[in-house]
Amino acid sequence: MARNSIGKNLQITSFGESHGPAVGVVIDGFPANFTLDLMALQSCLDRRRPGQSDITTARNESDQAQILSGVYEGKTLGSPITILIQNADAQSKDYDALKDVYRPGHADWLYNEKYGHRDHRGGGRSSARITAGWVAAGALAMQYLNAQGISITAWVNQVWTIQAPDTNTLPSQTGINGNSVRCWHEETANKMIAAISEAKIQGDSLGGAIRCVVEGMPAGVGEPVFGKLQAVLGLYLLNINAVKGIAFGDGFAASKMRGSEHNDAWKMENGAIVGATNHSGGIVGGMSTGNPIQLDLAFKPTSTIAIAQQTIDAEGNSVTLNATGRHDPCVLPRAVPIVEAMTALVIMDLLLETE
Amino acid sequence: MARNSIGKNLQITSFGESHGPAVGVVIDGFPANFTLDLMALQSCLDRRRPGQSDITTARNESDQAQILSGVYEGKTLGSPITILIQNADAQSKDYDALKDVYRPGHADWLYNEKYGHRDHRGGGRSSARITAGWVAAGALAMQYLNAQGISITAWVNQVWTIQAPDTNTLPSQTGINGNSVRCWHEETANKMIAAISEAKIQGDSLGGAIRCVVEGMPAGVGEPVFGKLQAVLGLYLLNINAVKGIAFGDGFAASKMRGSEHNDAWKMENGAIVGATNHSGGIVGGMSTGNPIQLDLAFKPTSTIAIAQQTIDAEGNSVTLNATGRHDPCVLPRAVPIVEAMTALVIMDLLLETE
Amino acid sequence: MARNSIGKNLQITSFGESHGPAVGVVIDGFPANFTLDLMALQSCLDRRRPGQSDITTARNESDQAQILSGVYEGKTLGSPITILIQNADAQSKDYDALKDVYRPGHADWLYNEKYGHRDHRGGGRSSARITAGWVAAGALAMQYLNAQGISITAWVNQVWTIQAPDTNTLPSQTGINGNSVRCWHEETANKMIAAISEAKIQGDSLGGAIRCVVEGMPAGVGEPVFGKLQAVLGLYLLNINAVKGIAFGDGFAASKMRGSEHNDAWKMENGAIVGATNHSGGIVGGMSTGNPIQLDLAFKPTSTIAIAQQTIDAEGNSVTLNATGRHDPCVLPRAVPIVEAMTALVIMDLLLETE
Amino acid sequence: MARNSIGKNLQITSFGESHGPAVGVVIDGFPANFTLDLMALQSCLDRRRPGQSDITTARNESDQAQILSGVYEGKTLGSPITILIQNADAQSKDYDALKDVYRPGHADWLYNEKYGHRDHRGGGRSSARITAGWVAAGALAMQYLNAQGISITAWVNQVWTIQAPDTNTLPSQTGINGNSVRCWHEETANKMIAAISEAKIQGDSLGGAIRCVVEGMPAGVGEPVFGKLQAVLGLYLLNINAVKGIAFGDGFAASKMRGSEHNDAWKMENGAIVGATNHSGGIVGGMSTGNPIQLDLAFKPTSTIAIAQQTIDAEGNSVTLNATGRHDPCVLPRAVPIVEAMTALVIMDLLLETE
Repeated sequence: MARNSIGKNLQITSFGESHGPAVGVVIDGFPANFTLDLMALQSCLDRRRPGQSDITTARNESDQAQILSGVYEGKTLGSPITILIQNADAQSKDYDALKDVYRPGHADWLYNEKYGHRDHRGGGRSSARITAGWVAAGALAMQYLNAQGISITAWVNQVWTIQAPDTNTLPSQTGINGNSVRCWHEETANKMIAAISEAKIQGDSLGGAIRCVVEGMPAGVGEPVFGKLQAVLGLYLLNINAVKGIAFGDGFAASKMRGSEHNDAWKMENGAIVGATNHSGGIVGGMSTGNPIQLDLAFKPTSTIAIAQQTIDAEGNSVTLNATGRHDPCVLPRAVPIVEAMTALVIMDLLLETE
Repeated sequence: MARNSIGKNLQITSFGESHGPAVGVVIDGFPANFTLDLMALQSCLDRRRPGQSDITTARNESDQAQILSGVYEGKTLGSPITILIQNADAQSKDYDALKDVYRPGHADWLYNEKYGHRDHRGGGRSSARITAGWVAAGALAMQYLNAQGISITAWVNQVWTIQAPDTNTLPSQTGINGNSVRCWHEETANKMIAAISEAKIQGDSLGGAIRCVVEGMPAGVGEPVFGKLQAVLGLYLLNINAVKGIAFGDGFAASKMRGSEHNDAWKMENGAIVGATNHSGGIVGGMSTGNPIQLDLAFKPTSTIAIAQQTIDAEGNSVTLNATGRHDPCVLPRAVPIVEAMTALVIMDLLLETE
Repeated sequence: MARNSIGKNLQITSFGESHGPAVGVVIDGFPANFTLDLMALQSCLDRRRPGQSDITTARNESDQAQILSGVYEGKTLGSPITILIQNADAQSKDYDALKDVYRPGHADWLYNEKYGHRDHRGGGRSSARITAGWVAAGALAMQYLNAQGISITAWVNQVWTIQAPDTNTLPSQTGINGNSVRCWHEETANKMIAAISEAKIQGDSLGGAIRCVVEGMPAGVGEPVFGKLQAVLGLYLLNINAVKGIAFGDGFAASKMRGSEHNDAWKMENGAIVGATNHSGGIVGGMSTGNPIQLDLAFKPTSTIAIAQQTIDAEGNSVTLNATGRHDPCVLPRAVPIVEAMTALVIMDLLLETE
Repeated sequence: MARNSIGKNLQITSFGESHGPAVGVVIDGFPANFTLDLMALQSCLDRRRPGQSDITTARNESDQAQILSGVYEGKTLGSPITILIQNADAQSKDYDALKDVYRPGHADWLYNEKYGHRDHRGGGRSSARITAGWVAAGALAMQYLNAQGISITAWVNQVWTIQAPDTNTLPSQTGINGNSVRCWHEETANKMIAAISEAKIQGDSLGGAIRCVVEGMPAGVGEPVFGKLQAVLGLYLLNINAVKGIAFGDGFAASKMRGSEHNDAWKMENGAIVGATNHSGGIVGGMSTGNPIQLDLAFKPTSTIAIAQQTIDAEGNSVTLNATGRHDPCVLPRAVPIVEAMTALVIMDLLLETE
């Protein structure tokens, strides 16, 4: 199980199991002499941590970031930054009943098959808890990008069949974080919350979609052949648990268009070249155009549900399973900071290459 | 412009410009002592080459693969395999008029901005011609996978608003290649061809979607954290020109489902564990389940059209452009072997890690 | 300051500063389901830790390894193994006087120049303390190799001008660790200890050489072009602080030989091909031959001395420096486990590729 | 047999067998818009090519560099630069007699063992011919470094027991190339040539050493942990055929020194910090100090000799071998441009990271 590192110029190495002593991340390549805002780092983690609201999982973690290296007197040293997050609420016993049952939608048996040994408690290395380290790393990348005038904004754009209206105005972080579902459009947010609450009562879960927009991008970020901006974004974002699809700009709708509709004409604006329209989502030829980057991520409904399901156990016997762990009716609100973090890590990695 | 290599265990390095002497590929990590079928390699290239039919670009290239290293007496040596494809029909003059005009949907000005120097002829390094090397590499990977009982089948599933019916039966390569649009469903194929022909007359282009299915996959291919099978597929496939989205299994439709609908129950079949349904598209927890892998790729309509468009030139003046190069009304039929090739390269790379 | 990870199949990521909260390592790619001996791990760290004897630095650290991830019920999970070693005796004040002085033989000003910000306490990231993490990682690699019949033995072969006799018999670990200088030959060891004790009194330091032998190597480890066994050993071992040279087999003496003297004839032995002699040090064509691997490392005398030296301060003024930190008269005894660890990491990394 | 690529920011991929159609290299990451001197490139290849003088191998190759990609109108495009060198004098039949014999000092049987298939003609992938591509890549790196005021000079410093005097004055390229053995000191050169000529008549070969000096280095090139300048130089240079050791500055002699002798004091010179002496060979803490870099490489005597030797054949029978291929009595003169090339590739790779 190699491949726990990602990134070329800004490499992050993820470690930790859901119910081990800690999860964390090592960030290598972060430039020296950058003053970090550790409060902002903690605030990103707080947006991801479980137990924030009624519509999410009940696991309770304070997720305090502890910095073990790479920072001295508040500034980065250029050396690897190690961030540790202790696992506090590791109630392993909750999972004893699931030790030899292969849950639908989960990779339990694949772990047994592939590695011959597995930490069955809470999903081990497949747990969404692992993303705490990613969010910590992304929070630092975000600070670096902000200092260069680049901002990243994600929100829950769809829950189940409930979709927010399209908008050309970037939603504010205040608007997005003003409700527990993290959708900027209040009316839609209320419908989403109602649907999730209902699914929760039923022991069921709901899928959805997150939209992410990057503003302030310089032109020319990304490399034209195997380092296309959309491809590297795909690599990072498709590693987020439950993501089953990614699309840029008009995305799948673009596939139903004609060239004369979709082509973004170039124009001069304030002395810079930009696209007059932005069907491409801010990426052409694998490089950023300077227009906002826009992407959509499809999330499957969480596999962890409380409804009875048919499956098999380690001996191949059919069993009926009544619950598959701590029930999380909709993972999307907590996934918003993860999407922002992974997007930030991609942009910073490619930006460091460009510089 | 680094990042012209991709892959960890099977690394391919792409080289060549559209109108330089040649394009090609170096394949590193291909196991030794494997007997290659060079006819099958050429046949993959023939399916990609331009000038095959009325509904594609008129550039005429024989695209003969020339093997410069890594093969001795018909068998691989284990050393890097270098495949060269000469550029024959490099009519550079066609592009003189476009030298200082920044075409809509193309990255011309981004190249100038980023690299300060550009081969403007035929898109240089952004040309779809570059993918000839990828197809050659993928053709060898495909032979390796076939020998292990793995097959990869892609087809044009949608052109513009015309969509093939869903099917649970894998279309045959004969059925797919039986028409110029490479859609297995004859009636749909005819409608697609008619639409492309009409767009061609209008000087316009059409988007569409390709579906790709991998059968015979062993379980456990892919790594659980940053090497998830879907993420590595995303990295490779989103590097294909004009691709604006990728989705796995039910993809974006999964985002409108409930967990109780989407979860694939595990069952025993012939002594092996498999999913009873396959909403997940054969990937759970970042690893293959043994069920067929299914993915969809959204292609934007080709940017190269013959309809007049507004844009700017290198001095920032508004200009009207009447044609943007050799007109290609629909890139999808020729993209089918590219999708198969890139998919094969991913699977082989991860399979070599698993072994 | 990227490049804090090394290895392809077994990647280790080093983190931590000398006087920060902790140093440590993340090990990615270690096979799952391997039972670890944590006592043996600690024992390797104990052989490296400061304060072991009279002839080494006085810094006192217990260097207790704490495992944060990757191990469950005593066995590896296949996921990244994180090992943390707290910095206990971090007497930062000792270094206040050196904050703005650029010590001879040290990289202080290069850090300031390159990174604009520096943890001046105890060498920060250049401290030999960082190698505690390497030794921990190497200790696990050693256990893996031992299980395959491969053993690694290093010893101090030279201190200053005092050299151990050549031997064809592999010294035992007991013999090597039986004295504080870690030289298997008692008479030589006594001379070395006397020389170091004298240098200590003078406030001076001594260079020397370590020899390392790998027995039980399978043939064919290493890759013939840019992954030659000697080159990868060079990459790792030349990263050890104070190492100024590496040589394999007859090494620099080979450069004074004729082909007819140096060529090792092949012969059959117990059904296997081996070299009848081993001038090559067990490596031919970049691959192991199955004969023992033998290499020598030259260490410069430690830069940290207590004798007055001329240098400059941060403003460029000439200053006389009376001490450059905690005096360590000879770093070689403590470097023995580091050499073994780094050698183990190389062999395991290449072995995993071979498998 | 992976690992045919090397480098992080400037990646070179080596391909080709000694007696296949061609050898070559793909260079990825070379900055765009740099005007190349193709005559200088060819001149580097000419210094490496066989058949230059009486004291080298008789194989005759013109080694004409052919550029297939990455250069347009004399300037780099930023895209991969592919350089091809055809194999002209591929007299495969010379090697028929050696097909099933395992030559002393060669890796023939290891190839059979490891890969199960081998191009036995002229060493296949282990041939020194492969380095033609490295020299081509290094020639371009050298041009890039020269434009930044960095020069690299290597010479044969020792043949067998004949050693050139030490010098603090950098020898001129004219002086070095003024004789067939490439030693700047005429008297020593004559002795070396006499010794090689005698060995040639005897069918024997001689080892030796090459010294390489880099002048004009900026301070701070190299990364303090696993990217130490000496370690990356070790990785590249120990991949050169026949190299058995590398040492920096005083090297193995430093191991016999005291700290008070070896430490280089810092001083101000023309407003810059430099070492007052240069025992360290221009590298401290893994980074360049700005002083000249100096390194020595030990070469074993060429394994290919014409004297009768004992060995075994593929069936394990003892055989007497009268010649092991085209006899090359001393590889060192031709290795000089290889050493310069590999050194240039390292410095440029790390320099691109620094920028």
